[in-house]
Amino acid sequence: MPSISPSLAAAMADAVKAVGDTLERILPKSDYPESKLFESMRYSALNGGKRLRPFLVMSSARIFGVADECAQRAAAAVECVHCYSLVHDDLPAMDNSDLRRGNPTVHKKFDEATAILAGDALLTLAFEILADPRTHEDPQVRCKLIAALARAAGANGMVGGQMLDLIAETTQLDIGAITRLQRMKTGELIAFSAEAGAILGKASLQHHNALRAYAHDLGLAFQIIDDLLDAEGTEEETGKSVGRDAKAGKATFVTILGAERARNQAGLLSEQAIQHLSVFDGRAKHLEDVARFVVDRRN
Amino acid sequence: MPSISPSLAAAMADAVKAVGDTLERILPKSDYPESKLFESMRYSALNGGKRLRPFLVMSSARIFGVADECAQRAAAAVECVHCYSLVHDDLPAMDNSDLRRGNPTVHKKFDEATAILAGDALLTLAFEILADPRTHEDPQVRCKLIAALARAAGANGMVGGQMLDLIAETTQLDIGAITRLQRMKTGELIAFSAEAGAILGKASLQHHNALRAYAHDLGLAFQIIDDLLDAEGTEEETGKSVGRDAKAGKATFVTILGAERARNQAGLLSEQAIQHLSVFDGRAKHLEDVARFVVDRRN
Repeated sequence: MPSISPSLAAAMADAVKAVGDTLERILPKSDYPESKLFESMRYSALNGGKRLRPFLVMSSARIFGVADECAQRAAAAVECVHCYSLVHDDLPAMDNSDLRRGNPTVHKKFDEATAILAGDALLTLAFEILADPRTHEDPQVRCKLIAALARAAGANGMVGGQMLDLIAETTQLDIGAITRLQRMKTGELIAFSAEAGAILGKASLQHHNALRAYAHDLGLAFQIIDDLLDAEGTEEETGKSVGRDAKAGKATFVTILGAERARNQAGLLSEQAIQHLSVFDGRAKHLEDVARFVVDRRN
Repeated sequence: MPSISPSLAAAMADAVKAVGDTLERILPKSDYPESKLFESMRYSALNGGKRLRPFLVMSSARIFGVADECAQRAAAAVECVHCYSLVHDDLPAMDNSDLRRGNPTVHKKFDEATAILAGDALLTLAFEILADPRTHEDPQVRCKLIAALARAAGANGMVGGQMLDLIAETTQLDIGAITRLQRMKTGELIAFSAEAGAILGKASLQHHNALRAYAHDLGLAFQIIDDLLDAEGTEEETGKSVGRDAKAGKATFVTILGAERARNQAGLLSEQAIQHLSVFDGRAKHLEDVARFVVDRRN
């Protein structure tokens, strides 16, 4: 499998910088001295990360010629939702993780109450960002973004998937259930990220659907590689606790398929994702490249 | 102080029924068998409650002739946010409450992880409801509702207030800080509820502001009475754990002002709230009545 191409590396670095700057501007700053709420929100959201979802928003927006500020604000909103989900998933009552991106998780750095509230505030902020006219001049577009993000993040999307993931610790799931779980837990938000550019650009239904299909395959490939890294990676490489699934006796793509078939499956999904982009006649080069990169990553 | 008037009682019962029916329709139903997510969301949101915020939304909407379905959906969204905040505030890492409205709190009935996720999903659902065209045909109105709700509920509103409330357990706050805390923690969402009718009805700025001012005074009066009930009420009367503030050595309106001055202050705020409604020339009768009721309630 190919390693990261120079043009993809540059585009991803651009997205990291742009979304970081946007979040830096948007996140609240001067808190009451005793309150750690704003500090914990910033700790969570400005603490590195691959910014895969913002990259997908910005790359898909570029296909339709969307203005940079609009794309960056939508990207920041998605990242707020992603960060909130990490903060809550890491809590002791959930995955009980101490490390995230090589640093203490929010409840370790601050405390549990602060982590719960920081997550709540980041989720709320995401919708505040999208409702703002600076995200798009057309309120119809803003409402569509909000509705799609809420569906992707809510009880039938990410939150529902996290609930199934907790059940998976005590119930033996089959490959169909695992696929459904992962589609909800990570796939829907990744799909929204790719679709956001189409919503911002008022794209045709065909283009919408192509991006959603691409992102669903990409999301699943991404998750399979996550499972592989949890099974085979080190804390130094990944920057987070590893070996957790095996320790919990949890069914994953890797425990069910074995490492080799899992890796092959991720490769196939990546190729399939790229095929969905053929409607864009080469205007979705970054999205093609990232589908290759996702299955080749080490963290 | 007067007890509840027959017409207010009927209007409040109508609001309880209408928002209950609306939530019943909107809340997700058929979950995966092992998942308790939908069940816990419904347990939280359909579990009684005074529905004060929905009542404010519906009463303010009526002033401007807003269609019932629009008002009821906006009311349901506010109630989702209110219920999520109760579920998270009750968590062991926060207020650690076992009882809510006379029943076990969500983390007691289910477990902590489910409570965290049910709260997350209810918050997300609130924005999904507001972004839906059935809430208002004009997307500009929907965006305004979403922006205002997100501001009221977020880091500079309800969540920020809850953070300050946690700090109040270890830091001695003065009356100014307590007032600010309560304005953020409960006042902003109550203010949004009253303003929602004005947004739905595309009211003038003067009418917006009158409703906000009314609701801010009402919210503070409401909170003072809450503190009094915590200090003087019984679990049987209030349906929740009482005496918690005193046990925690926490400063409240009652510990700072004493019970009598606190009650007087609530009465004054209630009268002041009613004065703000004079611009409506008697068309806000229910809102006037509820301001009297709030300071007279026993739970």
